[in-house]
Amino acid sequence: MTALSGLNYAIIGTGALGGYYGARLQQAGAEVHYLLRSDYDHVCQFGLVVESPDGDVNLPQVNAYRDVANMPPCDVVVVALKTTQNHLLPQLLPPVLKPSGVVLVLQNGLGVEAAVADVVGAERVIGGLCFLCSNKVGAGHIRHLDYKKIEIGEYDAAGQAKGVSDRMRAIATDFERAGIPIALAADLVLARWKKLMWNIPFNGLSVVLDATTAEMMLDDQARQLATDLMTEVVLGAAGQGRQIPPGFQEEMLEHTAEMKPYRTSMKIDYDEARPLEVEAMYGAPLKAAQARNMRLPKVMALYQQLKFLDNRRRQGNQ
Amino acid sequence: MTALSGLNYAIIGTGALGGYYGARLQQAGAEVHYLLRSDYDHVCQFGLVVESPDGDVNLPQVNAYRDVANMPPCDVVVVALKTTQNHLLPQLLPPVLKPSGVVLVLQNGLGVEAAVADVVGAERVIGGLCFLCSNKVGAGHIRHLDYKKIEIGEYDAAGQAKGVSDRMRAIATDFERAGIPIALAADLVLARWKKLMWNIPFNGLSVVLDATTAEMMLDDQARQLATDLMTEVVLGAAGQGRQIPPGFQEEMLEHTAEMKPYRTSMKIDYDEARPLEVEAMYGAPLKAAQARNMRLPKVMALYQQLKFLDNRRRQGNQ
Repeated sequence: MTALSGLNYAIIGTGALGGYYGARLQQAGAEVHYLLRSDYDHVCQFGLVVESPDGDVNLPQVNAYRDVANMPPCDVVVVALKTTQNHLLPQLLPPVLKPSGVVLVLQNGLGVEAAVADVVGAERVIGGLCFLCSNKVGAGHIRHLDYKKIEIGEYDAAGQAKGVSDRMRAIATDFERAGIPIALAADLVLARWKKLMWNIPFNGLSVVLDATTAEMMLDDQARQLATDLMTEVVLGAAGQGRQIPPGFQEEMLEHTAEMKPYRTSMKIDYDEARPLEVEAMYGAPLKAAQARNMRLPKVMALYQQLKFLDNRRRQGNQ
Repeated sequence: MTALSGLNYAIIGTGALGGYYGARLQQAGAEVHYLLRSDYDHVCQFGLVVESPDGDVNLPQVNAYRDVANMPPCDVVVVALKTTQNHLLPQLLPPVLKPSGVVLVLQNGLGVEAAVADVVGAERVIGGLCFLCSNKVGAGHIRHLDYKKIEIGEYDAAGQAKGVSDRMRAIATDFERAGIPIALAADLVLARWKKLMWNIPFNGLSVVLDATTAEMMLDDQARQLATDLMTEVVLGAAGQGRQIPPGFQEEMLEHTAEMKPYRTSMKIDYDEARPLEVEAMYGAPLKAAQARNMRLPKVMALYQQLKFLDNRRRQGNQ
């Protein structure tokens, strides 16, 4: 077993995602500090619980904070907020990031690192993609359902591939020690487009059609629409000079057909009346494509539908 | 006041649409025969009632039939079934159509006359478009809410404009006498594409987004999507050599914005768990465009979504 790197971690947003990875890192022996809001009192008293098919994790004592001013500066600051909360980053990040530290942005979408780079500088940003199915089911209580893999890559403001860095390897050591498979992406932008290949069809359609992945894969028309959306994503990636490997699309469709019926993260957000990450997941890829005069009309139609549904729900919540 | 033409009418499908126009023709003095199914007993006993802002129509005695075999052959056979019931036409039409008679197809979509032409011959078909907002609220009980205009045009199997015929004028005489504004289209295909300009965006989106026309027009993204769909319909029409007049699209959007909140006919069908007219309204225009190598991607995406929703609902009903 590899030893830990000795890096310490701040988890900004201790929900289904941040809570899961933080708890696994802590369980493996890493020093982890958690920023909480509504769950703060409960977690101070009872700690964190992760139910998981891999075995439950009980952490009766965790380093919990409700204010970043009280957190120690950390080597790795994990942004595990939804992109819809990125307006909070200028307040949250500076106090908790060591001068030599790095921010690991575990968010969906494209170009989501830019908001972090604006605050801490592009050279201190690593992007990350999570292939995780987990829910927060109560205060400090996370239910891990399936998957857990993570993929990380160095951010570059100009969108160039930066290769694999030593600090990526150090972080990978800790995640591996915690039992989380981690891939090191030499090209973060390619990794993000590959993830969009799944997220763009299935997150959006699951909301608009009120459907699970299984229902969509079993219906000829919905499966064809998902396929068409993927084909447009391939074009969008090509516009940024990224080649989605041949066969990747078919492989992803087959994998989705074999998955157990899955409620996507956007569907969960929608069902729980939370804001949808439409801009990060659809708006940014569409803008990137548009800047290169590429049209992704079906992705655009889905974006427009999701914006309508999201706006209506937000207005209803006011 | 013009006199009636003396034509007699058969109404095939005495619902919100057929019942409304039939009752208005009968009220004006025309001889009208109604085919009914579930409402037959009730209508035999109590007749037809149309509530309307124009004044209610009470017809205690109507010529009601549950079997076309008992109906007299008529000059004008009005097909007022949904297109999803067109498989019934070979049984329904021949007994009730005079040798010199004509079938008036009051259905939504494109190319819907072909199913009728297969049964009675293309030269005995007139297509019609209804701009009508009415519901059936009980047996033999129709509530007319708004609009009533009708537009008719001669059908041509090759899709050519056939001009205005004498038999169109004769029918128009009766509808005008009944207080129904009627337009005579020299080019039925153009008239159908113009109606699709509204139906394609607003019928489909109202189902997928669970929204009224007013909600869509008030939301920037939904209004833009509706506009984009209309722009694709203009292309589709151009593929069939039909020029939608400049300004028509803006005019239609403005008109829709000023309408009272309106539940579209497809939304009503969906809410009442009836099959959706997806093929007539989306499948046929898409096929027509495809035959000319034109792609209407946003219309296609909406088609695919509607097919999924319609299939799921039908399976749920089995």
